[in-house]
Amino acid sequence: MLNCAVLGATGYTGIELTKLLLAHPDARLSVLTTRQEKSIPLREVLPSAPKNISLEIVPYSFEEVRKKADVVFLCLPHTEAMATADQFLNAGKVVIDLSADFRLKAPKAYPEWYSVEHTFPERLKQAVYGLSEMNRAKIKKASLIANPGCYPTGPSLALIPLLKKKLIEPDSIVINAASGVSGAGKKLVAAIHYCEVNENYNAYKVNKHQHIPEIEQSLSEAAGRAITITFVPHLLPISRGILATIYAATAPKVTEAMIRKTLETAYAKEPFVRIKPEGQFPSLKDVQNTNYCDIGFSVDHRTGRVVIFSAIDNLIKGAAGQAVQNMNIRFGFPEEAGLL
Amino acid sequence: MLNCAVLGATGYTGIELTKLLLAHPDARLSVLTTRQEKSIPLREVLPSAPKNISLEIVPYSFEEVRKKADVVFLCLPHTEAMATADQFLNAGKVVIDLSADFRLKAPKAYPEWYSVEHTFPERLKQAVYGLSEMNRAKIKKASLIANPGCYPTGPSLALIPLLKKKLIEPDSIVINAASGVSGAGKKLVAAIHYCEVNENYNAYKVNKHQHIPEIEQSLSEAAGRAITITFVPHLLPISRGILATIYAATAPKVTEAMIRKTLETAYAKEPFVRIKPEGQFPSLKDVQNTNYCDIGFSVDHRTGRVVIFSAIDNLIKGAAGQAVQNMNIRFGFPEEAGLL
Amino acid sequence: MLNCAVLGATGYTGIELTKLLLAHPDARLSVLTTRQEKSIPLREVLPSAPKNISLEIVPYSFEEVRKKADVVFLCLPHTEAMATADQFLNAGKVVIDLSADFRLKAPKAYPEWYSVEHTFPERLKQAVYGLSEMNRAKIKKASLIANPGCYPTGPSLALIPLLKKKLIEPDSIVINAASGVSGAGKKLVAAIHYCEVNENYNAYKVNKHQHIPEIEQSLSEAAGRAITITFVPHLLPISRGILATIYAATAPKVTEAMIRKTLETAYAKEPFVRIKPEGQFPSLKDVQNTNYCDIGFSVDHRTGRVVIFSAIDNLIKGAAGQAVQNMNIRFGFPEEAGLL
Amino acid sequence: MLNCAVLGATGYTGIELTKLLLAHPDARLSVLTTRQEKSIPLREVLPSAPKNISLEIVPYSFEEVRKKADVVFLCLPHTEAMATADQFLNAGKVVIDLSADFRLKAPKAYPEWYSVEHTFPERLKQAVYGLSEMNRAKIKKASLIANPGCYPTGPSLALIPLLKKKLIEPDSIVINAASGVSGAGKKLVAAIHYCEVNENYNAYKVNKHQHIPEIEQSLSEAAGRAITITFVPHLLPISRGILATIYAATAPKVTEAMIRKTLETAYAKEPFVRIKPEGQFPSLKDVQNTNYCDIGFSVDHRTGRVVIFSAIDNLIKGAAGQAVQNMNIRFGFPEEAGLL
Repeated sequence: MLNCAVLGATGYTGIELTKLLLAHPDARLSVLTTRQEKSIPLREVLPSAPKNISLEIVPYSFEEVRKKADVVFLCLPHTEAMATADQFLNAGKVVIDLSADFRLKAPKAYPEWYSVEHTFPERLKQAVYGLSEMNRAKIKKASLIANPGCYPTGPSLALIPLLKKKLIEPDSIVINAASGVSGAGKKLVAAIHYCEVNENYNAYKVNKHQHIPEIEQSLSEAAGRAITITFVPHLLPISRGILATIYAATAPKVTEAMIRKTLETAYAKEPFVRIKPEGQFPSLKDVQNTNYCDIGFSVDHRTGRVVIFSAIDNLIKGAAGQAVQNMNIRFGFPEEAGLL
Repeated sequence: MLNCAVLGATGYTGIELTKLLLAHPDARLSVLTTRQEKSIPLREVLPSAPKNISLEIVPYSFEEVRKKADVVFLCLPHTEAMATADQFLNAGKVVIDLSADFRLKAPKAYPEWYSVEHTFPERLKQAVYGLSEMNRAKIKKASLIANPGCYPTGPSLALIPLLKKKLIEPDSIVINAASGVSGAGKKLVAAIHYCEVNENYNAYKVNKHQHIPEIEQSLSEAAGRAITITFVPHLLPISRGILATIYAATAPKVTEAMIRKTLETAYAKEPFVRIKPEGQFPSLKDVQNTNYCDIGFSVDHRTGRVVIFSAIDNLIKGAAGQAVQNMNIRFGFPEEAGLL
Repeated sequence: MLNCAVLGATGYTGIELTKLLLAHPDARLSVLTTRQEKSIPLREVLPSAPKNISLEIVPYSFEEVRKKADVVFLCLPHTEAMATADQFLNAGKVVIDLSADFRLKAPKAYPEWYSVEHTFPERLKQAVYGLSEMNRAKIKKASLIANPGCYPTGPSLALIPLLKKKLIEPDSIVINAASGVSGAGKKLVAAIHYCEVNENYNAYKVNKHQHIPEIEQSLSEAAGRAITITFVPHLLPISRGILATIYAATAPKVTEAMIRKTLETAYAKEPFVRIKPEGQFPSLKDVQNTNYCDIGFSVDHRTGRVVIFSAIDNLIKGAAGQAVQNMNIRFGFPEEAGLL
Repeated sequence: MLNCAVLGATGYTGIELTKLLLAHPDARLSVLTTRQEKSIPLREVLPSAPKNISLEIVPYSFEEVRKKADVVFLCLPHTEAMATADQFLNAGKVVIDLSADFRLKAPKAYPEWYSVEHTFPERLKQAVYGLSEMNRAKIKKASLIANPGCYPTGPSLALIPLLKKKLIEPDSIVINAASGVSGAGKKLVAAIHYCEVNENYNAYKVNKHQHIPEIEQSLSEAAGRAITITFVPHLLPISRGILATIYAATAPKVTEAMIRKTLETAYAKEPFVRIKPEGQFPSLKDVQNTNYCDIGFSVDHRTGRVVIFSAIDNLIKGAAGQAVQNMNIRFGFPEEAGLL
């Protein structure tokens, strides 16, 4: 059994990760921590935990985590994970970081998009971007895994195979994304008051969202050159799920069949990526509470554009589920363990 | 007092129109009809009607409507309005049609997009497209007003001024729209079961929606040449409202200030179109239960694209409210009458 | 035109009241205040306000309100209205208080249920409880109107006529109430986070809610003796509306027909209370965004109990609407003015 | 591995049961049937099924089920299960019926509450009512298990221990229940249109719901004499979950501590019944997607009443989950198998 620590176990991502690890056949939750000053029974934040579970989420102590855990999951706010990851790497642990702190390769992207200098830039080189299906070989040997953001996961899986095969025009990509409210976290801000969200729908952080450089980094790598994208996130009046509706110009002479073959080939053996048949499109209800990423598409010959959809559960494939998938890859467990 | 008939008063659009006309200072609901065989007390479909109202929705009779009404509102299913409109026009009535039957100028668009031949193509020439803010002069003299579709209304108001001033590239337009469920009508299909819609979000009729030619017709006229657009509608788990997120490439040297000035000038005197200040974007809750169309935008110089948002209540500005606005224009009432 | 002041115009109740008064034919909004330090354009809190309205919500100043207003509406937190009301009464104004500060006749009820001593107990005697349909004669002459709480309004209207006629057993009353989230106000507490409320339903303040003594006061007066009730409020995953499901033992030999006749007679001429026909029961959607209270019931001869339902919009008949109704009564306007 | 058949696998209950059995360590889904004429891939009704599952739901054939299954789950409409159960019992199968057809002991209750004569009244004697926690000994030996209704499950678990100990007055019981929409099934009726349910809340089948005799049967048995109850169901704008708020007079001298001790003792060793600590009350979100029944309560000495809450997921503990729990009991699997 692998001894796991979850740091920041009271947020939505931490709770979801705890839930997945509780049911994992090869993992043991050896320590759960919080930045709060008092211990909290796990049951209070995870009421669905089995009746007789007596786990507690305890105030954070580096020493306790170091002693008890082989792998340390960081569910900390962005910019707080930098130093903590460094400490546990120095202590020889495997760190799976669910924050953004090690996702971007270029240190200068942090002041630009996160308004903070990166304090451990040398760790950026070492970090492996944990898009499981794309970086499996590197993840197997990684000591620091930067788990992808919730918004980037779906569009990256949808677009990378098409960019590699040059089936779409790299500079034409527009990503219209819509997310459930859990993506905004537990923080009490006016925007998440029930009466503000209910029966409402609107865009936010237009042209400014911090996931833009993360998506561009993945797509640029696939395209073989630097590209920019348009990305507009919207808030849906639901608890969980992200649907990305992606628009791109097709390259000359590209057909729907070529796109289909490319995507189906790329994901034929992947347990968690499903390509919808022709004329069917992803729905959030098909992926909620699962680690699936569903992808569908339609080519419009009138306009020369393809519309591609990706759907995930933002807390699972977009966070905790992909983190467990990465743990499975890293430690040689079956990739589906604890995720089906 | 203007005598008004509402044909098809039991659907969502008919109910909303009835509600607006009940409160209108210059209109009198002289007859409400249904295709059902028995009369229905208005109270049953409009529970918020004042306590002592005893209006009934009666089985349709051409003669009764002809005798009682000066203006006839058609809230009938698409393709059923064609003949009915023709009859009332022959009887000298003003017809405001809320179906799609007279919106498209080209008769051949009907078999292509609505799978039906148009049986009164000569009436298409006579029909005035009732986008109130754009066609006010023609609406004043019209006997047949084709009230715009719910999806086309917002994007048309947002884009026409920009296309006229050539601020955006006509062939680059992508419209990502999301609508509340009332837009699908009252018909009982699996897709509107509460458990299918709730906590869900998905696209439908991808690249195939019948509002595409209507939007293209309006935008082509503004651009001065035929253009095609990409339009993808999505279903939101809410009852009412449409937010369109529109992407377009800006023309060379176009600035955010030029776009702002164009939109603010175009709608400075319009009571129902509001331009959001910089950095603010439309929300459905700001327009629900109103006749407003809210428009906001942001230029991204990284990508050379502008993102423009339009928000309306699909049953009001997208249907019944705009129909009343058109009635006000046509009969010389104050344009806001019954709508504020 | 009556000059109106709304104190606390940024909360849900204050906004709703402002909206109603804006549309009122006989009222003028002369001053809107906030406890915040800077002025706020009305448009920011009431986006549906007509486009050219330039009203501002200004930091509170007693002198400014005194000069500009004839009637002062207090939408202040409980216990903050006491002194403010006293000041404006001393200045000769009519005060309509939407807080709980003057609803209970017994000063000792305040420390017991609101954890605070009443600092102006003599004003309690002077205050008229603003249950419009029951206290119309007193409201006409009142200088201080204590607008009823959202939960008490429906059950009081449903039960008072039955208690007066002794058709139900006074000690058998159980009120199971369910409210939309706006009843909890705008305060950012964990309980109103979208993800906590969405898809959820639960009771709160069980046997402890501060509206218990208010309901008991009204029902005791109707019954002619002190009675106690069981009242359990629940939080619904909706924005507005309260449905109370009330259970009571019928008095011996009481029939469904006797209850129907009593309720229909009591409210025959009331514009805002509607009795549902046999076999039909109130729905929140029938009363949302209206000042109606809908009442329905069913007698079960198997158990000797009657189930009575009352439905209101908590922000309108349960707060701002009833306040306007009371203003209409007090100042001799038509009772429906601004409310239909 | 136990070979399982699910008859009626396309309804909400059938889908949930299929999902649970798919993940069950000791069960094998050997046949899934539908009354429709064509086979349906399981994936279409259960999109979360693992990617490579190729199960089909096939048109019903008695012979095929007889050959392939050891236990037959009936997810058929009420009154359709009678004859089917009889057939499979004759064929020596264990039948777990999720309809109401074998829940009531008195044949005459069927024409009264279900408007149909029972065609196999002798099977009623043989049927064991599958309230797992109460009838475990009988379930172990049963060939026909009548799985409890969704509404009766929670109140029965909450009240039976209190009635057995005579802590509450049997004739004082009032059950106010609120259910998510999946309880109404998949049938397309106006009442489940998204726009009818969304933002709404109302009672239905007041004093007439067919679960009344089922609840009374269980409670009468516990009380040792025939009792009647008041039961009023309400429709919540959520997909799943039932909260019952139960009111009863406490017997003389009964304290909160006595009630607590009785409930905690009764369920100390039960894996699926959890008693909330003092001052905490069940929430639907704590039990959704689980087989738990959460129970909480509060005694009000002012009124001499206790309020008791029970919360379950209507599709799991209220249907498919309890059916699996009963299968586990019947076939000697660990009771939690496939349910945690």
